[in-house]
Amino acid sequence: MVFGNTGENSGSGVAFTRNPANGANEFYGEFLINAQGEDVVAGVRTPEPVIELKKHLPQAYAELLKVRATLEKHFKDVQDVEFTIQEGKLFMLQTRNGKRTAAAALKFSMDMVKEKLIDWQTAVLRNPADQLEQLLAPIFDASEVKKAAVIATGLPAGPGAATGRVYFNADRAVQAAEKGDKVLLVRVETSPEDLRGMIAAEGILTARGGVSSHAALVARQMGKVCVCGASGVNINYDAKTANIAGQTFKEGDYLSIDGTSGTVYAGQIKTAPSEIIAGLVNGDETAKATEKFKSYTQLMKWCAQATKLSVRTNADTPEQTRIAVAFGAVGIGLTRTEHMFFEGDRIDAMREMILADTLAGREAALAKLLPYQRGDFLGIFKALKGFPATIRFLDPPLHEFLPHTKEQQADLAKKLGIDVAKIEHRVHELHEFNPMLGFRGCRLGIKYPEITAMQARAVLEAAVQAKKEGIKARPEIMIPLVGFKKELDLQVALVHEVAAKVFAETKTKVDYSVGTMIEVPRGALTADEIAQTAEFFSFGTNDLTQTCLGMSRDDSGSFLAPYQEAEVFKKNPFASVDQTGVGQLMKIAIEKGSKTRPGIKLGICGEHGGDPDSVKFCHKIGLTYVSCSPYRVPVARLAAAQAAIGDAKAAKK
Amino acid sequence: MVFGNTGENSGSGVAFTRNPANGANEFYGEFLINAQGEDVVAGVRTPEPVIELKKHLPQAYAELLKVRATLEKHFKDVQDVEFTIQEGKLFMLQTRNGKRTAAAALKFSMDMVKEKLIDWQTAVLRNPADQLEQLLAPIFDASEVKKAAVIATGLPAGPGAATGRVYFNADRAVQAAEKGDKVLLVRVETSPEDLRGMIAAEGILTARGGVSSHAALVARQMGKVCVCGASGVNINYDAKTANIAGQTFKEGDYLSIDGTSGTVYAGQIKTAPSEIIAGLVNGDETAKATEKFKSYTQLMKWCAQATKLSVRTNADTPEQTRIAVAFGAVGIGLTRTEHMFFEGDRIDAMREMILADTLAGREAALAKLLPYQRGDFLGIFKALKGFPATIRFLDPPLHEFLPHTKEQQADLAKKLGIDVAKIEHRVHELHEFNPMLGFRGCRLGIKYPEITAMQARAVLEAAVQAKKEGIKARPEIMIPLVGFKKELDLQVALVHEVAAKVFAETKTKVDYSVGTMIEVPRGALTADEIAQTAEFFSFGTNDLTQTCLGMSRDDSGSFLAPYQEAEVFKKNPFASVDQTGVGQLMKIAIEKGSKTRPGIKLGICGEHGGDPDSVKFCHKIGLTYVSCSPYRVPVARLAAAQAAIGDAKAAKK
Repeated sequence: MVFGNTGENSGSGVAFTRNPANGANEFYGEFLINAQGEDVVAGVRTPEPVIELKKHLPQAYAELLKVRATLEKHFKDVQDVEFTIQEGKLFMLQTRNGKRTAAAALKFSMDMVKEKLIDWQTAVLRNPADQLEQLLAPIFDASEVKKAAVIATGLPAGPGAATGRVYFNADRAVQAAEKGDKVLLVRVETSPEDLRGMIAAEGILTARGGVSSHAALVARQMGKVCVCGASGVNINYDAKTANIAGQTFKEGDYLSIDGTSGTVYAGQIKTAPSEIIAGLVNGDETAKATEKFKSYTQLMKWCAQATKLSVRTNADTPEQTRIAVAFGAVGIGLTRTEHMFFEGDRIDAMREMILADTLAGREAALAKLLPYQRGDFLGIFKALKGFPATIRFLDPPLHEFLPHTKEQQADLAKKLGIDVAKIEHRVHELHEFNPMLGFRGCRLGIKYPEITAMQARAVLEAAVQAKKEGIKARPEIMIPLVGFKKELDLQVALVHEVAAKVFAETKTKVDYSVGTMIEVPRGALTADEIAQTAEFFSFGTNDLTQTCLGMSRDDSGSFLAPYQEAEVFKKNPFASVDQTGVGQLMKIAIEKGSKTRPGIKLGICGEHGGDPDSVKFCHKIGLTYVSCSPYRVPVARLAAAQAAIGDAKAAKK
Repeated sequence: MVFGNTGENSGSGVAFTRNPANGANEFYGEFLINAQGEDVVAGVRTPEPVIELKKHLPQAYAELLKVRATLEKHFKDVQDVEFTIQEGKLFMLQTRNGKRTAAAALKFSMDMVKEKLIDWQTAVLRNPADQLEQLLAPIFDASEVKKAAVIATGLPAGPGAATGRVYFNADRAVQAAEKGDKVLLVRVETSPEDLRGMIAAEGILTARGGVSSHAALVARQMGKVCVCGASGVNINYDAKTANIAGQTFKEGDYLSIDGTSGTVYAGQIKTAPSEIIAGLVNGDETAKATEKFKSYTQLMKWCAQATKLSVRTNADTPEQTRIAVAFGAVGIGLTRTEHMFFEGDRIDAMREMILADTLAGREAALAKLLPYQRGDFLGIFKALKGFPATIRFLDPPLHEFLPHTKEQQADLAKKLGIDVAKIEHRVHELHEFNPMLGFRGCRLGIKYPEITAMQARAVLEAAVQAKKEGIKARPEIMIPLVGFKKELDLQVALVHEVAAKVFAETKTKVDYSVGTMIEVPRGALTADEIAQTAEFFSFGTNDLTQTCLGMSRDDSGSFLAPYQEAEVFKKNPFASVDQTGVGQLMKIAIEKGSKTRPGIKLGICGEHGGDPDSVKFCHKIGLTYVSCSPYRVPVARLAAAQAAIGDAKAAKK
């Protein structure tokens, strides 16, 4: 046993070898003179910053700095240490890798490569993919911040910007968040009882507690914006008020906190995109000059060097495409064409098509949609700058496009000049017990081939137009919900027929391919047959999960809680691919599909494409690419690179 | 070339070596003197019965009789021949196996075994399993028939009894049938244009045409009741009337036809169960004395001798169980316990349970259901006489039990003494987008373990009671919709817990087992894990088809027609197991399940259990049993025996 409580020549402390909140290469921690380690954490006495130890016990402090350097050299990572000084003599009680925020992880990794402590591959691995989004979180708008009043400061314990209504109690914070309010949880100190409130809150502000306090710890782990130990914040729990710099804030009033600087502001402050987004997407030169931006781009360069799995995006508009390409997406993995039918007046033509009694009526309505779709596709091809675009043909059940309230139906009847009874009848006719398993996907195009024909024409005419404008378009037409080879055969034949017409009409040819989504188990199980026709597969893991598990994502709320409590599954299968079940179907499809068509292009376009564990799984089973929403592209790129580096390191061993 | 139109010493005819309608060992056909073969079929002149040929050309007829015997000896089956007599000399133009009704097939097979033309195994194979149900179709009630007026007679072309409103046109017949009317299609003659009307009709009556007429042919193939060539029926298509024996029948009036005897009756006649059902189920001694009954029981004896796959039944009541056992079922493959919750007052207790806010409230409601369920199970155990019963625990979504109209909700609120708003709220809360994939199956029992506990108690207390009454009960408790081993683990632990309590309370032990349905793809794919806990598997091929294909049976109506036209699938996958897709999952489950638990009991309890092709598939992949509705048990037994005989014959070769 060592004792730090033997007098003024003794003491205890906790410290990180670098700042675990923002990553600065500074000794970061706190200590108490004449105290044991547990006293530092208990918060009875307020500890001092560790650099102040130099004044109290300079010799021990010098010793501690030496240990700090030695530990980092040995472990090649930032350490979280506990120490005790007994009568001037330093004892190290414990050391371990320090928990860190995403911002700190990024800076640690960059600095340590420069310091030659680690190689770039290790640097990539040091950035947790599931936390990368923190770096993309909004910051306060610079011009707005200037106008705002700083009313307190504390420790910058969780970087980022958060504005919200203050609540002094976890339960009330949760309730307010459930109602849709943005919430800041404000406490003297936090304890595990506050956890629910911390999760619900945009940010956490505490009046007491240092870098090893509960609030700081949780913020680091969860990536929450946090300012702790802001001693100017005087909370009265009974009155449900906080007095800060002479102002009284009631529950529900607004405050803003900057967890990067540790500043507390009165009122609401507008946020602005993070420097990374401002630099990449908006081309903001000031943002590009920041260290955060540079570190991020360096990280992504390394990712590109390491990765085998490429990353595409799910995008339905030129703007989304542009953002994703700025983030490094190398194509579109999923364009949901139906999203284009909802904009503006288009929905009217769509509804007219659904309500038509005859082929001629449907074709007339589709003819109105054709120029819109063609325009959209041309915009997307331009935004892609030559990257390929997987375009999924109409997928959702038709009733999703019809109005369901009496008022809306009456409006539509008037607009189209038809009897409202007809609309009611069609809505009734299209009603389904299980729309997820109903009249949708390629089933629409098989019953109404004219829809597929119009979409094929829109895609190919747009590609031809792009070519005429000097832009290479690479459309990959994707037929959804295929379970039987014959379904795909029917639709592919139609696409080729339309293509021949378009090429003859325009005297121009473009390259295109036709493939399918694998999103029902039968599609996976008969992938050998389907690959005879399909030029590529894309795993629609949203629907594949729903059908493989017999579990509707939208309805799983009723039992998800008891299921997670009982650990029926470790992770929500709609967030992270169920590797045992759904993954098995994917492997079957890959094996069978590759046997028929060696080297068949394989992608994934479900929500899972942006989940790091799922991305790593996709790398492992040999997919060509993953596709995810634009803002998840960096996450997917990092996860893909880490999977490749992990492989390479394992191979070396 | 031979010519039958060279004068009175020539002629042409078509004939069956035995009667293809009722199976009688009589020469059956028709001919025309001085005519070519096509004239017989064309119906311009009315042909004479083939036995009349003896009068015209006795020598040629004697020759023809010799050929008849020779052909049957050679082909060992009933032949359908075409012949021409040219100047007294017989030429056989064609011979092939004759199409036959189920009744004829049964009689042929019995007679030919007696005649030592075929062995009993061949006799079993000669009865088409998919037509066996024809033999179980109702006949006219004997006492009612005596009171009815015979108004015409014709050829007995399709055995059975049919009563319905007459329609003289196929389209109007279809329309009437769609409205729910029982329809008789009455035509001078039928042509392929009438096919839709024939399908829609209970029976077909024609005024002209013999055994080779279109009506007779189609009736034989489709197993429709048919009387043809009833020359006393005078149809006026324009007036939409038929004059028969002086009476005028308008469209929509009732007629009755007996296709076994060829009789036409005025008005409606009550039907009675077929002799087979009367004998087996009702123990009717007169029925038991009929040839049809004896032939049927002989056939089933042979089936029992040959079969490897046993046949169980899907039954929810003692009465259904009794019928199925009478048909030779050796147990229950599926008892849907939820059906028991709808009867009488029980639904009130069920609703009370669903509406309860607390565990205590639910338990109080469940306590009311317990005695009902226990009583039902006891009745079923008694009806089973020692055969095992697979009992599925609560499966459907809870909203199916709640009232959905305002009136019903108000009634229930009054009955339970609660606010109607509460019922509305709960209905709303339980509403699901895709109930098929929602809060149902074991998900109910995991969220509300008290439901499972009540059901386990009901089953086991009933089994204990049965034992005390000297009846062996063999409950097999089946947990539905399992996709994860842990789901089953949780429910099985609960069942065992309840069992221990019941056995302690009653100081009696009974054997029971707990297994699961394999009805979602993940269950099949992880069968190795699930079999660690499951003592048996039963394939729920209804849901497995829906999830594997991503296709809702209830919603497939919108696209089934274009799918069947385009031959996306050869058979409706909800009627006959999709062997390539769903069958593949079944094979995976069997292989994986058997690896973990060698010899694991394997059954099927979807609708497919009564489909001959599916039964044969189940035999092939090694199931222990199939289970189907009581009246399909004979079909399944025949199909199972045929599969086994097919194997044995293949092995011999």
